[in-house]
Amino acid sequence: MYLLLGGTGYVGTAFQKYLKEQSIPFRNVSRAECDYTDKDQLDQLIKDLKPSFLINCAGYTGKPNVDACELHRAECLAGNGVLPGTIREVCESHQMPWGHVSSGCIYTGRREDGGGFTEEDTPNFTFRTNNCSFYSGCKALGEDVLEGAERCYIWRLRIPFNHQNSPRNYLSKLINYETLLEAENSISHLEEFVRCCTETHAKQVPYGIYNVTNTGHVTTQEVAGLIKTHLLPDKAFQFFSDEDEFMKLAAKTPRSNCVMDNSKLLSTGIEIREVHEALIQSLRDWMSDEG
Amino acid sequence: MYLLLGGTGYVGTAFQKYLKEQSIPFRNVSRAECDYTDKDQLDQLIKDLKPSFLINCAGYTGKPNVDACELHRAECLAGNGVLPGTIREVCESHQMPWGHVSSGCIYTGRREDGGGFTEEDTPNFTFRTNNCSFYSGCKALGEDVLEGAERCYIWRLRIPFNHQNSPRNYLSKLINYETLLEAENSISHLEEFVRCCTETHAKQVPYGIYNVTNTGHVTTQEVAGLIKTHLLPDKAFQFFSDEDEFMKLAAKTPRSNCVMDNSKLLSTGIEIREVHEALIQSLRDWMSDEG
Repeated sequence: MYLLLGGTGYVGTAFQKYLKEQSIPFRNVSRAECDYTDKDQLDQLIKDLKPSFLINCAGYTGKPNVDACELHRAECLAGNGVLPGTIREVCESHQMPWGHVSSGCIYTGRREDGGGFTEEDTPNFTFRTNNCSFYSGCKALGEDVLEGAERCYIWRLRIPFNHQNSPRNYLSKLINYETLLEAENSISHLEEFVRCCTETHAKQVPYGIYNVTNTGHVTTQEVAGLIKTHLLPDKAFQFFSDEDEFMKLAAKTPRSNCVMDNSKLLSTGIEIREVHEALIQSLRDWMSDEG
Repeated sequence: MYLLLGGTGYVGTAFQKYLKEQSIPFRNVSRAECDYTDKDQLDQLIKDLKPSFLINCAGYTGKPNVDACELHRAECLAGNGVLPGTIREVCESHQMPWGHVSSGCIYTGRREDGGGFTEEDTPNFTFRTNNCSFYSGCKALGEDVLEGAERCYIWRLRIPFNHQNSPRNYLSKLINYETLLEAENSISHLEEFVRCCTETHAKQVPYGIYNVTNTGHVTTQEVAGLIKTHLLPDKAFQFFSDEDEFMKLAAKTPRSNCVMDNSKLLSTGIEIREVHEALIQSLRDWMSDEG
């Protein structure tokens, strides 16, 4: 049986749906039911439920966006920096495997050689590089806290999207924002992300960090073009002239835009689609009602 | 009535002693009694006790020294980065003044102009400057989390010492370490520190950050000389040849060594002795039995 923490969030809901479809027995435990941020309560929960695997999709993301994390720093640190360490300690004491939903937002740009960032590259959008949002800094500290963790998968998600309209869906954001920022990104199809994460455990690939993004990368302009072609032919997209204008007019804290390399994931035999293919299918299947 | 959090630690014990001497009524609450790291429990505690002022001397310091924080990252982040934010939120909701024991260990060296660091200087031994220990990084995040806090004193302690032998006392460390690192530091006499902190509230000086260090600075060589002159005439002190040797042989993570400027504190009329005077008196009154 799997134990899911944070299962009511955007990513957690997708995990629940996938595990149900796959008939994998699981329990989603809410913090109201058990405050799993408390080591002793999490330990007792694991003693009671005896799960074979734990999935942590709990974390603090600002609402409506990452700017809110600048104002809720303690919650952001607790949810993204401390909680992974608490779970690690308890899971290691039970010698139990587990996986943590991390983020590719701890990188910016591309590698110096022009390639996407691999799991070996030191994150470059962190407190230590002093260029990041408070959110990215906290996510990077979460990975610091997991350095050397045993029986632990670290799954890096990047800008989730799928075919269902939602305030958290990248496609919905592009459709609804008044003005867009041109940037180059690797991104993650939500249902493929949760399938790949689950498969790392099911297929017993080696523990460690995995960039779980669709193959390749896209620019905002490209995605806007796909939205016009496949969903909203009359939509006129407006762009900020550059990142300075974006920071001046629309944002309180810098965004991570980056290209990731998913070849470590692919090398395990786990499959994930090319990003344009995944985007086009999501737009063809688009459901404008949430859920 | 004052509410003391972390009152059984090295600094907290000194607060308890001082408040008793001054006949200031207070309650020291342990985490066993109330888990004040939980917002709701701290809120209820304040509703029950109705304190007029809260003193936070709870925090995570590694044992036997700061190297241990490299191995206990989540606890270090929780105790030094998240807890101040939790206390802030609850105190602000009660419009209650409070003080937080921070640290000068978020600086290294001196100001570019040769002076000591003032409260206006941006910390330069932090995750953002990427040169620090995990402990210093977490203490600096604690100050980030308190940015703009209302009715809040941030008291910066540096390397506490007094006349009582203790594993936490700077003088005991110099006496007991096999080899010393030459460095220049501002340091805090423990009893003067807690008196000054308490006086900031009692005298209603403006809220904000205060460097609560004895006036001036000392080198390790100087303090070793004072120990020989006033306490252990036959003691032979050995020094590492430089910081590289110290890092190679004795330490897992870099130490903060820095000169602080305490003129903001002095400008309020609160008095603190010149550092050599405070050191000599501590050595003359030396008690080799703890407590």
